[in-house]
Amino acid sequence: MTSSFLGDDFLLDTSASRHLYHEVAAPLPIVDFHNHLDPAAIADDRKWSSLGEIWLEGDHYKWRAMRWNGIPEDLVTGKTDFREKFQAFAETVPHCVGNPLYHWTHLELRRYFGWQGLLSADTAEEVWGMANEQLTKDSHSARGLLEQMSVTYIGTTDDPCDALPHHVKAQSDPDLAFRVAPSFRPDKALDPSAEGFAAYISRLENVSGISIACFEDLVEALLNRLDFFVTLGCKASDHALSEMHGFSKRASGELDLILRNGRNGWTMSSQDAEDFRAAVLVELGQAYAERDIVMQFHIGALRNQNARLFAALGPDVGGDSMSDKGCAAPLNMLLDQIDQRKGLPRTILYCLNPALNEVLVTIAGNFQDGSVPGKIQAGPGWWFNDQLDGMERQLTQVAQMGLLSRFVGMLTDSRSFLSFPRHEYYRRLVCRMVGRQIEGGSIPDVPGLTEGLIRRICHDNARDWFLPDAG
Amino acid sequence: MTSSFLGDDFLLDTSASRHLYHEVAAPLPIVDFHNHLDPAAIADDRKWSSLGEIWLEGDHYKWRAMRWNGIPEDLVTGKTDFREKFQAFAETVPHCVGNPLYHWTHLELRRYFGWQGLLSADTAEEVWGMANEQLTKDSHSARGLLEQMSVTYIGTTDDPCDALPHHVKAQSDPDLAFRVAPSFRPDKALDPSAEGFAAYISRLENVSGISIACFEDLVEALLNRLDFFVTLGCKASDHALSEMHGFSKRASGELDLILRNGRNGWTMSSQDAEDFRAAVLVELGQAYAERDIVMQFHIGALRNQNARLFAALGPDVGGDSMSDKGCAAPLNMLLDQIDQRKGLPRTILYCLNPALNEVLVTIAGNFQDGSVPGKIQAGPGWWFNDQLDGMERQLTQVAQMGLLSRFVGMLTDSRSFLSFPRHEYYRRLVCRMVGRQIEGGSIPDVPGLTEGLIRRICHDNARDWFLPDAG
Amino acid sequence: MTSSFLGDDFLLDTSASRHLYHEVAAPLPIVDFHNHLDPAAIADDRKWSSLGEIWLEGDHYKWRAMRWNGIPEDLVTGKTDFREKFQAFAETVPHCVGNPLYHWTHLELRRYFGWQGLLSADTAEEVWGMANEQLTKDSHSARGLLEQMSVTYIGTTDDPCDALPHHVKAQSDPDLAFRVAPSFRPDKALDPSAEGFAAYISRLENVSGISIACFEDLVEALLNRLDFFVTLGCKASDHALSEMHGFSKRASGELDLILRNGRNGWTMSSQDAEDFRAAVLVELGQAYAERDIVMQFHIGALRNQNARLFAALGPDVGGDSMSDKGCAAPLNMLLDQIDQRKGLPRTILYCLNPALNEVLVTIAGNFQDGSVPGKIQAGPGWWFNDQLDGMERQLTQVAQMGLLSRFVGMLTDSRSFLSFPRHEYYRRLVCRMVGRQIEGGSIPDVPGLTEGLIRRICHDNARDWFLPDAG
Repeated sequence: MTSSFLGDDFLLDTSASRHLYHEVAAPLPIVDFHNHLDPAAIADDRKWSSLGEIWLEGDHYKWRAMRWNGIPEDLVTGKTDFREKFQAFAETVPHCVGNPLYHWTHLELRRYFGWQGLLSADTAEEVWGMANEQLTKDSHSARGLLEQMSVTYIGTTDDPCDALPHHVKAQSDPDLAFRVAPSFRPDKALDPSAEGFAAYISRLENVSGISIACFEDLVEALLNRLDFFVTLGCKASDHALSEMHGFSKRASGELDLILRNGRNGWTMSSQDAEDFRAAVLVELGQAYAERDIVMQFHIGALRNQNARLFAALGPDVGGDSMSDKGCAAPLNMLLDQIDQRKGLPRTILYCLNPALNEVLVTIAGNFQDGSVPGKIQAGPGWWFNDQLDGMERQLTQVAQMGLLSRFVGMLTDSRSFLSFPRHEYYRRLVCRMVGRQIEGGSIPDVPGLTEGLIRRICHDNARDWFLPDAG
Repeated sequence: MTSSFLGDDFLLDTSASRHLYHEVAAPLPIVDFHNHLDPAAIADDRKWSSLGEIWLEGDHYKWRAMRWNGIPEDLVTGKTDFREKFQAFAETVPHCVGNPLYHWTHLELRRYFGWQGLLSADTAEEVWGMANEQLTKDSHSARGLLEQMSVTYIGTTDDPCDALPHHVKAQSDPDLAFRVAPSFRPDKALDPSAEGFAAYISRLENVSGISIACFEDLVEALLNRLDFFVTLGCKASDHALSEMHGFSKRASGELDLILRNGRNGWTMSSQDAEDFRAAVLVELGQAYAERDIVMQFHIGALRNQNARLFAALGPDVGGDSMSDKGCAAPLNMLLDQIDQRKGLPRTILYCLNPALNEVLVTIAGNFQDGSVPGKIQAGPGWWFNDQLDGMERQLTQVAQMGLLSRFVGMLTDSRSFLSFPRHEYYRRLVCRMVGRQIEGGSIPDVPGLTEGLIRRICHDNARDWFLPDAG
Repeated sequence: MTSSFLGDDFLLDTSASRHLYHEVAAPLPIVDFHNHLDPAAIADDRKWSSLGEIWLEGDHYKWRAMRWNGIPEDLVTGKTDFREKFQAFAETVPHCVGNPLYHWTHLELRRYFGWQGLLSADTAEEVWGMANEQLTKDSHSARGLLEQMSVTYIGTTDDPCDALPHHVKAQSDPDLAFRVAPSFRPDKALDPSAEGFAAYISRLENVSGISIACFEDLVEALLNRLDFFVTLGCKASDHALSEMHGFSKRASGELDLILRNGRNGWTMSSQDAEDFRAAVLVELGQAYAERDIVMQFHIGALRNQNARLFAALGPDVGGDSMSDKGCAAPLNMLLDQIDQRKGLPRTILYCLNPALNEVLVTIAGNFQDGSVPGKIQAGPGWWFNDQLDGMERQLTQVAQMGLLSRFVGMLTDSRSFLSFPRHEYYRRLVCRMVGRQIEGGSIPDVPGLTEGLIRRICHDNARDWFLPDAG
């Protein structure tokens, strides 16, 4: 039986999957616990002037696709106006068949704008007019878009030095229909070999009011900020760990010295920098455990690999790819060191290279301690893996080597207010997976079992972690 | 067509697969050439007092699942009685949907106990009574359980210092309905940097009657024990190689020195330890070839990664995960060095990280020498890979990059006398794979071809290696 | 519905796939832009005396399979006559079920010889007579075989020191029905630590007429040869990069010194050799960009791993397997250094270890610059990956992380004039993939979209790169 493109039964190839999706998964609200939405847009309830602006302003997924399709940079990130850029994107879309962008684009046009066609150079003008008209409405403001999707929780990603004025403003607004909370991402304080380290530590001193003369001071200043974040409902931290080569425990005097070298901008060995990072992470890990903050590690991105692009446009513009270095031994060691002190916090591990999925799931298994179901998670398909094949691989490994039923579920990780149909995409996929196994005799056709599973991994597990009072 | 859960046609989604499984694979006896069954239990024909005891006494797969499900350690490995532990396990089982434990558990309840329900907290009491009653019967003693499954060969895993009294006793028992033989696993003699090395070498001196003053003596003592194992029908050796970083050939005087350092408990470089291990393996590899002993390498387990757990419970308790280091170059070099002397023995390579499956299959291809079909094997999905996805990946790679028809087949690798339905699981999977290819036009629908294939990889190839006189 | 073995609808399990294959893909000509065909055989329009000769003379895929099946070396590569070797191969074929050799063998018998049976020991005599008789005909000469398959372009692989007399001869033949061009593969000039380096540089001096006293001279000599190749229509270069450990940019004086050490046969560090290789590649990369030559990197083969085999038979005899070392950081750095100078040429990256597929696709994405669609390619499944599972994995990753529509498509990479049904194999597979997605609602059932996609990735994209004037 052929299913129509993105039709009601898109991806749902068994009767069990159709039941599970339509009756169980689809109506659930969305807890999007990790994304890069701009809190100012939420606080100010931003509107966008065009589909070009909201789609192409900052989305490096689309930029990479356009470059791959032979679109010159001027039409990708240059000063050309959004109408022309949109035309170039529309021209690229038919070449994206097989890529999640093809599905995302059309799901967004259907779900937010009710437009059922196929975007291409030919239909660009029609889509431009249709969408821009709707973007003027309150239903299509920042909050309107989230409310359309039944979002109940938004976890943004924030710097410890940020005073979080937009979170303050949003939270004090009685009309805000969902919870929004910051996440604590102190990457810049963890790499004493990075160019901006000295300036960053000075900023941290200013904002925390703590003078940072030694390693212990640095930790104190970070915890000062963490406690401020907690007052605004912060439930999660996040750390970008590009590669992990291995580290040693260093004496506090040595850590002080590395800190001083970093503040002076002196060169240091990569080993010193990695040992320092691990030492901060061990301290923070315990602090997270004490405050019941979820700790997230994003491992294995090689960033800014195209020097020409970086020089022209800076970071996060589409010059990033996967590391193929392992991280198993040092990641085990880091988690173990945190665990030996005061026990691990709840933790989510993400890897950019899907060849490490199994490694991460089995590492998660090493540190489950029976205190919380699914305490250590191998997180959902991240970035390049946030597509059907990548998600299915990751979910298959969690199921086969861990407990799928305790999986914390999907997130957008996105800068875009239009990206929430990705939750639908994920939910259809998990219903397909479970439905196929029911029909094949691998999972019992018992609603109490399968509906609970779907409900947990599509919503309840994430709600229990990030909106526990709503449970 | 929906198949019922674990029904007759579980996993068999084509008519070809149903024919191949029911007519060809299912009736075959089981040659389980590598496991960790307790020879004493076979010799004494042990009985178990409860399903809790036989399932939960030593099964770290179940322990990990329970911890993952938030079960406190006391109910996992603590002093709590087995009824309560069983309740905690039963509560965990519905959360194992998607994990092989879910299938294994219910296959075991169906095949050994004839119980067709779903285990959960609600049915735990019923299952407890039902199973415990049957466990008192002779059909459910150690031997009874194996005979129910038509087991014809059991290869246990044994230490060279073991006097193997239980093997002696079992083999002298005229009522034993299957062959049981030890496998030679000299791991403790191969790592001079390990804590227990000195004591182990002393034990080896005592049991072999050979004084170990130099490297050559060590080899002589090991071969002395190997020859004793051979008198008890030993057909296989086994080596756990956690990671392989690369080694150099060392002069015998240097090897003597490393041995002495190890016996004195002096620290040594990891390079010295790895070179020493390689040197012993080269000597043993030739000895295996001369005695027609199958050599097994288990590569890439990172063990005891949770220090708290290890301190509390010791090794093999669920704190193990996968290495993500490569082994291609040093593994090629090790096999090549053995091959250059007197030729390789038959060899089976296992890797814990399935990302190395293809590497291992292509390495096996490098050393096929035409003397024996499938002389060098990439072994079946090991440990975390012993599940549908892991087995299918491994079999696919063996098929696409080697000769599936010459594959030595499945083993339980288990400590549990109830784990033999895993052979059924494997057989259903291979019939599914072959059946799908027949229906898709990828394999000719010629019984002489496909039935022979199924028969070989489900039984005959293993029988030819481990029970050659039964062929 | 069961499809007959290799029947008309082999692999085509949806109506969409059957339409796309039969109506769109099947009639397209073949642009085989990378292979190892012998140009002399084309120039001289070679005929073969037997199926044994054409199949078994130099095909290490078949040799490995025969050794795996327990065939002694004498019947594989020894002096035994081809009839006996053919018998040993025929005996091996039924054991190849699941391996691409099983499909290739029978596709070749069907497509070139019209024989529909199954090869085995029993049918060997029939096949031998049937095929040998046809091999005497003009339809089965080197050119005849290519013309039967509608080949329009052949890109061979050639050494810079080669005077290319066979290319000259073939190109001056007005009867040649397809284009044949050399590819520039200067591996031997890039490794100053290799045994034959000194002799090779001397040959290069002779053939180029340029005295090579320093690094700059070496580059000049290579460009001299490259320009000669270009006069014969060369469109591509190729580089075998076994492993990439990381390199530094070296001063030209240091490169001169490394060159001199290499010419003197003095030992050097592996780092010196790798830095030297990178320096040459940066120079060549720019030269390729200036001349619009496609740059190919073949990464990650561990060659000649079986010393006994290498001593007896030399290289390329079946002793090769995959590396499991990463290459992400150094490959990014190499591409970036070329890009920073004058921009990258069109580039195709291949890796032998499929665990690196995703790494390569995301690296390709880093360097798309909008100048040409799909400028940087992650190339099709190479060598051990040139089979259904390997191709599907690679295509899935290109689709999910890049633009499948811009994929340059398949090649044989083969030494055999009978290997062209591999294009059919690939085309059926891509039609299966796309067809399944159409039926599942993942791709719109719009002929203008899907037929164009199939046409591009089965032919047009490769034609646009290698036969641009035929577009």
